[in-house]
Amino acid sequence: MEPKLITLLSDFGDKDPFVGIMKGVIFGINPNARVIDLSHGIPPQDLMAGALVLRHSAPYFPPGTIHVAVVDPGVGTERRPLLIEAEDRFFIGPDNGLLSLALEGKSPRHIIELSNDIYHLKPISATFHGRDIFAPVAAYLSLGIPPADFGPALTDFQRLPWPKLKTSDHAIEGEIIYIDAFGNLVTNVEERALKGRRAERLIFSVGSLSIRGLAPNYSGADERGYVALVNSWGLLEIALYKGSAQRSCRSQIGDRVHIRENLEGQGEAS
Amino acid sequence: MEPKLITLLSDFGDKDPFVGIMKGVIFGINPNARVIDLSHGIPPQDLMAGALVLRHSAPYFPPGTIHVAVVDPGVGTERRPLLIEAEDRFFIGPDNGLLSLALEGKSPRHIIELSNDIYHLKPISATFHGRDIFAPVAAYLSLGIPPADFGPALTDFQRLPWPKLKTSDHAIEGEIIYIDAFGNLVTNVEERALKGRRAERLIFSVGSLSIRGLAPNYSGADERGYVALVNSWGLLEIALYKGSAQRSCRSQIGDRVHIRENLEGQGEAS
Amino acid sequence: MEPKLITLLSDFGDKDPFVGIMKGVIFGINPNARVIDLSHGIPPQDLMAGALVLRHSAPYFPPGTIHVAVVDPGVGTERRPLLIEAEDRFFIGPDNGLLSLALEGKSPRHIIELSNDIYHLKPISATFHGRDIFAPVAAYLSLGIPPADFGPALTDFQRLPWPKLKTSDHAIEGEIIYIDAFGNLVTNVEERALKGRRAERLIFSVGSLSIRGLAPNYSGADERGYVALVNSWGLLEIALYKGSAQRSCRSQIGDRVHIRENLEGQGEAS
Repeated sequence: MEPKLITLLSDFGDKDPFVGIMKGVIFGINPNARVIDLSHGIPPQDLMAGALVLRHSAPYFPPGTIHVAVVDPGVGTERRPLLIEAEDRFFIGPDNGLLSLALEGKSPRHIIELSNDIYHLKPISATFHGRDIFAPVAAYLSLGIPPADFGPALTDFQRLPWPKLKTSDHAIEGEIIYIDAFGNLVTNVEERALKGRRAERLIFSVGSLSIRGLAPNYSGADERGYVALVNSWGLLEIALYKGSAQRSCRSQIGDRVHIRENLEGQGEAS
Repeated sequence: MEPKLITLLSDFGDKDPFVGIMKGVIFGINPNARVIDLSHGIPPQDLMAGALVLRHSAPYFPPGTIHVAVVDPGVGTERRPLLIEAEDRFFIGPDNGLLSLALEGKSPRHIIELSNDIYHLKPISATFHGRDIFAPVAAYLSLGIPPADFGPALTDFQRLPWPKLKTSDHAIEGEIIYIDAFGNLVTNVEERALKGRRAERLIFSVGSLSIRGLAPNYSGADERGYVALVNSWGLLEIALYKGSAQRSCRSQIGDRVHIRENLEGQGEAS
Repeated sequence: MEPKLITLLSDFGDKDPFVGIMKGVIFGINPNARVIDLSHGIPPQDLMAGALVLRHSAPYFPPGTIHVAVVDPGVGTERRPLLIEAEDRFFIGPDNGLLSLALEGKSPRHIIELSNDIYHLKPISATFHGRDIFAPVAAYLSLGIPPADFGPALTDFQRLPWPKLKTSDHAIEGEIIYIDAFGNLVTNVEERALKGRRAERLIFSVGSLSIRGLAPNYSGADERGYVALVNSWGLLEIALYKGSAQRSCRSQIGDRVHIRENLEGQGEAS
């Protein structure tokens, strides 16, 4: 299958020209490349945020897409630059866990260390492998260079753990793993963990906030405006309708979320 | 006329991958799509700001352009998803007024409710119609699917009112309707409302600030640096040359702006 | 050589649709244009930041690239709109120094004043030449219109001075000229100024901070996390590993940086 789109993900922000420079390198190698920005607003050096964004974005891209991700605090050190192919998608980035959540449950066809420097920009810098290694490799790959040409095969790569739930018959303990720009609190509780439970009897707690019932959408908020729902990533999310749950609850990444079933069928207030 | 460009407008910001995901969906359907970002920095859920940006941007795009706009606090509720064709432009978004200012004075050829789900992404989420409805419909439309295929025709759509001026022979009362990133105060006073008045005799007031004369450009500022001019949208704007009028005047959306003619021909200070 | 890519650089930020409007104008003229954003996060009206970004980005783009830059506090006044061709690159923007650092050391083949208004958008505004002059000229140039058609030749253009170093045998005084989004402090000390000096004996000082030795990359930081290195622009940079040197040192543009050689070969603490 011929690779087509190239997506870019980074913590470079929108002030500096680092992303534009990577595109210049790509178009210099493949003038017909098609490049899409996934996000460059990942908090600086936040591997988990980058890995989550990649995991929940990649499935919406067509087969053959090349995903380049650069959140790379260890640039220039021994961490290896990687190309991983799995299920007709290509992932390029540093071997620091950034690519791993998108690859969970997949069997990679290729794990390549990008050490063949005929595909690198020279002289190579010690501080910007996005420009000097990842961008040119993505461009050459989009031209049809086979993965194995970029370097030797590896047997494994660094992984970030998906934060585990603690579950019992009537309770689940999860945590906030991502907060989006609207201030919605995204948790590690996947939709399937809520299956078989009665949506209207579930009680969700974060800090001192308690929400009764799983709603179908943001407008299913309670009288205070709070709502718990399964979001577009398939994850439990706590939101404040037309407001920011993050600001209003002063929540942060890592805060615990408790879910239990109200077996009495009785109301319970926050 | 064959539709060509697709533009995207939203309040998604630049942190999350929502815009990138919409592009992935579009390119998965039409690999030859051409997608342009209009702005994703609309303040969260600010329909008026989104509608103004769309109104003043659309005229600069070529015929056939498809404008997708997603500021959608009611996503997943009964508000209808729309496609409107008018004067060889296509507008796609929620029926909440967001599209309406761009359509003022135009007679739509088609107003379509996007209910034909063979053109939607499935399973459809209750929280991200940008990804699941608006992006795929735009992509199929760009492939030449006729508007009527996307759902039944409607007779009308929600409208935001353009804030009215109060005018008399020698005075106009308008308001600040948009503040750009430079801190320029954009009003609802259109250029034609100032026609027939003598530019150098006009006095513009916002809060405690008063500016004498309508200037041709930013460098026509008075000795304090303030300037009133007709901006690139054809609207009266109050600006601080090389500074932010918003910060310096502590102005906000909705603040009143008064314009009167100095009939005495005499100076008057702020 | 046929011009191909068009890059855009501005201080327009990401809230307003000004960049999207420029792209609409470009695609209306050349539907096959290829447009890349270099950065739109230049601080408002900061010519030096814009000029530095352009200087350090342009070399990574292929020959024939058209660079459009709009940081333009004097828009609508007498400052001339320019097209400069040098070494198979094209630079379009206001004659206020913005283009000059990218052109240092190059002999322009054409310096053109963009006064031929058949290539402008009409009616031309006094406040948005990016839309009305620079975007359409870039689009027509990308279609193959020769530079000389856009207006008369000039003999020179405005230049920003590259801030000079003060050097002696054993000491260099430079300054901070740019601070990136990570808070890294970029100086005007080019790599060649450090050549012939022993990297491990150099001592770098900014304010009360002192760093011993030039490191190869960010992870070569000292025990406090500070590091001095040559960055991807070939300039001396002071950084805080996994942190912001700007915040931690309260540094700003223009702060002095001193470099001296420790001739004793003895340690010296900050």
